[in-house]
Amino acid sequence: MTDQKTAITPRRDEDFPEWYQQVVRAADLAENSEVRGCMVIKPWGYGIWESMQRVLDRMFKATGHRNAYFPLFIPVSYLAKEAAHVEGFAKECAVVTHHRLESDGAGGLRPAPAAELAEPLVVRPTSETIIGATYARWVQSWRDLPILINQWANVVRWEMRPRVFLRTTEFLWQEGHTAHETEAEAIAETEKMIEVYATFAREFLAIPVYAGEKSESERFPGAVRTLTIEAMVQDRKAIQAGTSHFLGQNFAKASGIKFLSRQNTQEFAWTTSWGVSTRLIGTAIMAHADDDGMIVPPRLAPTHAVILPITPKPDTRAAVLAAAGSLAEALRAQSYAGDPISVEVDTRDLPGGTKNWDWIKKGVPVRIEIGPRDLEKGTVALSRRDQGREKQFLTIAGAVAQIGSILESIQETLYLRALAYRDAHTRAIYNYEDFQAFFTPQNAERPEIHGGFARAHWCGYAECEARIKEELKVTIRCIPFDAQPEAGACVVCGAPSGKRVLWAKSY
Amino acid sequence: MTDQKTAITPRRDEDFPEWYQQVVRAADLAENSEVRGCMVIKPWGYGIWESMQRVLDRMFKATGHRNAYFPLFIPVSYLAKEAAHVEGFAKECAVVTHHRLESDGAGGLRPAPAAELAEPLVVRPTSETIIGATYARWVQSWRDLPILINQWANVVRWEMRPRVFLRTTEFLWQEGHTAHETEAEAIAETEKMIEVYATFAREFLAIPVYAGEKSESERFPGAVRTLTIEAMVQDRKAIQAGTSHFLGQNFAKASGIKFLSRQNTQEFAWTTSWGVSTRLIGTAIMAHADDDGMIVPPRLAPTHAVILPITPKPDTRAAVLAAAGSLAEALRAQSYAGDPISVEVDTRDLPGGTKNWDWIKKGVPVRIEIGPRDLEKGTVALSRRDQGREKQFLTIAGAVAQIGSILESIQETLYLRALAYRDAHTRAIYNYEDFQAFFTPQNAERPEIHGGFARAHWCGYAECEARIKEELKVTIRCIPFDAQPEAGACVVCGAPSGKRVLWAKSY
Repeated sequence: MTDQKTAITPRRDEDFPEWYQQVVRAADLAENSEVRGCMVIKPWGYGIWESMQRVLDRMFKATGHRNAYFPLFIPVSYLAKEAAHVEGFAKECAVVTHHRLESDGAGGLRPAPAAELAEPLVVRPTSETIIGATYARWVQSWRDLPILINQWANVVRWEMRPRVFLRTTEFLWQEGHTAHETEAEAIAETEKMIEVYATFAREFLAIPVYAGEKSESERFPGAVRTLTIEAMVQDRKAIQAGTSHFLGQNFAKASGIKFLSRQNTQEFAWTTSWGVSTRLIGTAIMAHADDDGMIVPPRLAPTHAVILPITPKPDTRAAVLAAAGSLAEALRAQSYAGDPISVEVDTRDLPGGTKNWDWIKKGVPVRIEIGPRDLEKGTVALSRRDQGREKQFLTIAGAVAQIGSILESIQETLYLRALAYRDAHTRAIYNYEDFQAFFTPQNAERPEIHGGFARAHWCGYAECEARIKEELKVTIRCIPFDAQPEAGACVVCGAPSGKRVLWAKSY
Repeated sequence: MTDQKTAITPRRDEDFPEWYQQVVRAADLAENSEVRGCMVIKPWGYGIWESMQRVLDRMFKATGHRNAYFPLFIPVSYLAKEAAHVEGFAKECAVVTHHRLESDGAGGLRPAPAAELAEPLVVRPTSETIIGATYARWVQSWRDLPILINQWANVVRWEMRPRVFLRTTEFLWQEGHTAHETEAEAIAETEKMIEVYATFAREFLAIPVYAGEKSESERFPGAVRTLTIEAMVQDRKAIQAGTSHFLGQNFAKASGIKFLSRQNTQEFAWTTSWGVSTRLIGTAIMAHADDDGMIVPPRLAPTHAVILPITPKPDTRAAVLAAAGSLAEALRAQSYAGDPISVEVDTRDLPGGTKNWDWIKKGVPVRIEIGPRDLEKGTVALSRRDQGREKQFLTIAGAVAQIGSILESIQETLYLRALAYRDAHTRAIYNYEDFQAFFTPQNAERPEIHGGFARAHWCGYAECEARIKEELKVTIRCIPFDAQPEAGACVVCGAPSGKRVLWAKSY
């Protein structure tokens, strides 16, 4: 492979959706299974998810939450309890109707008619209803509140057009479910958790996000308010990377979460829910990967650095492998972002170029080559995944001393790059013509390329939102928390508006 | 509550099964959900599971395994591929037949007839078949082997007589699935992993186990060999705490895991699988808990020590809370078994006795009371959960300095206690009369009480095994690895036998 060619075909600017699929494959992150819509998350992809879990779990615990586990199955009648929720979630889901198989008489198996369930069960698409039923048992008095619980789990939402990590029938996520004595406390919780997600996105995913509130039409079914973080990826579309919902008393009423208040009255609790999923892996790919494959942000990398021993001749092989091993040990004794540095020595019996490209495509932050000549000079050749195909030559001691700061520099570069990209493609827009032009592809052959994020005034009426969605496939991603008061006119209908909101095409 | 009464009613010696349920409830570990057979694992119980996961995950990674994730759903036809497997697992499972709900016209929901699946899916009872289908794609050449992967997941096996932690329709577990080039490598892997489980049981669960091989009738469906660890709990029954299966080429043939060998021939891979589950929590309860509730082994405790501030008067309250807070900080700076000591300060506005008993029932290893008098003297009152209701008075500095060794001493006490109990109730038996007497309840009102574990000769024939199972509900738990060669006669039929095997009633 020469320097002129890219490891991934097509390139991002040729066919972004196909490039994405190819990166997922080349980086060995995941693959489709034979079960339609369900993915296999391969060790490198799952390792990124484990890093995300470790960091988020620490953040959840630092904000007072504990983990628990609730049933996978939800009785169909539970879904029907909350009117808006049933509309949103009861449609495309996996329905369990039998609890036994029997021989079909032709060498196969079929559901046993005698084992039909009296009430069908649904595989949880989200757990508000089943957790609500549990909290109703746990909560008697205001002394039992707040309940601050998170669950790490798999969920299922039947997908007709699945896309690995972004939209799959089964995916992994965490769902926080809290219950509070007062409305103010529940709102504070909702806001605190979207802030946790925004911090995680910026500091770990290395992705800048707009945090804000969804308009009514984009709310979680059953929520009173939905807060979101929205990231821009490299085709300028938005991706909703995490949400936090203030559920008011809707689910408490549906599930019967009642308590005796300090004033000795029966009240319904105020609840919240919040979640992020394996979709974050897709977000990281689309935000950071390049035409040579994945680039994993160092703070989430399962392996920070890979050592590639170069062993051209049998007589120097043992010395090179020994040097690689002791370099690995020295690097592991260093720490980065509070954890030991994770190092792998790639001793596979494959050509050096193949191994090097494997790791480029996987996106390991740092590659270190060490060969017989290096041993003589006491040096190594270090490559940063964020810096194309350059190598820097360092002494072994220098590489060990600098590894932490190199990783942090890569992390920062990725963030600043994503920030610059987003800001370059975000524009304040004040009239419909500009708005339309911004979102209209300039090249008929590449209909996915458009302007990016628009910050434009909106009157607050659903009609204008619906029109834009219909005409341009553009939606309000959020009403950003940082939107400044500014008198203006709705970009659609011209009615007065007090601040600009964030519009974009989205995943 | 006086010293004469126990916190749990009934006591172990009155009604063991009911005692178990009451400990689960009193210790706030888990509860049954409205979905039959599915449990809610509450934060304290889930915290123990998280500790188990952390330790086991570290052990799996240290033995070269990585984690990945495979689909929840298995096409029904996959289950039918391996003849023995289908017999064992295709029976009682959750069958998904539809992917959409629709209104039933009466305010409820029903599976939409138009959304019936062409092929029903089963919620995984175990993942050999779906993972096998994946490995068949991954493996082409001997260079692709071994594959050493573990999955943390939920599984579903429909249970008619569920019992929390021990036998539930849904449970959490890990399942290792490996594929190897040679039979010898796969057998070595199977043996290595049962040894990992045995080490985990002894060093973390504080439970001695017999490790050995299952007889043919007790093998995992589809396995060539099943290795197991068997623990004794406090009603003298055995519990199978972990298993590791050598699957030969059975699943490789069923799934088509083939590779080009070093000799350029097409060969089927040799596979293994191994797992432990949330059943381990039930095992720990039945092995260690007493008539006052749970006792969590310190190495798996979500909280090692709880500080109970005693604040009888408003004027000393602030000083006591401050002292409790700084004691907590000092303890957290200590470490135990390689991790920081986890400390909770219980500042709930409840009577001191209530709080103290809450923590006794939960089984936190150490409780530390600190009150106004202690402040004057610079002391605390420390209670070990393994030492009844005694308190030891220590200086604050002494408590901080000794906390690690106190925890280790509790861990060791629990292990030695469980070992002494097991050994006291394990007997070498040489004839059928003694065998029958050993397993026959001495008291008609307490049919669960019997001798315990018998080490007795067995001829190796299934008929003798079946007879004992039929007559006494006793099975061969394993043929222990440590069984010494010894000429003898089968305890049932008198035929020659070369060593004694382990017999017991079991969960």
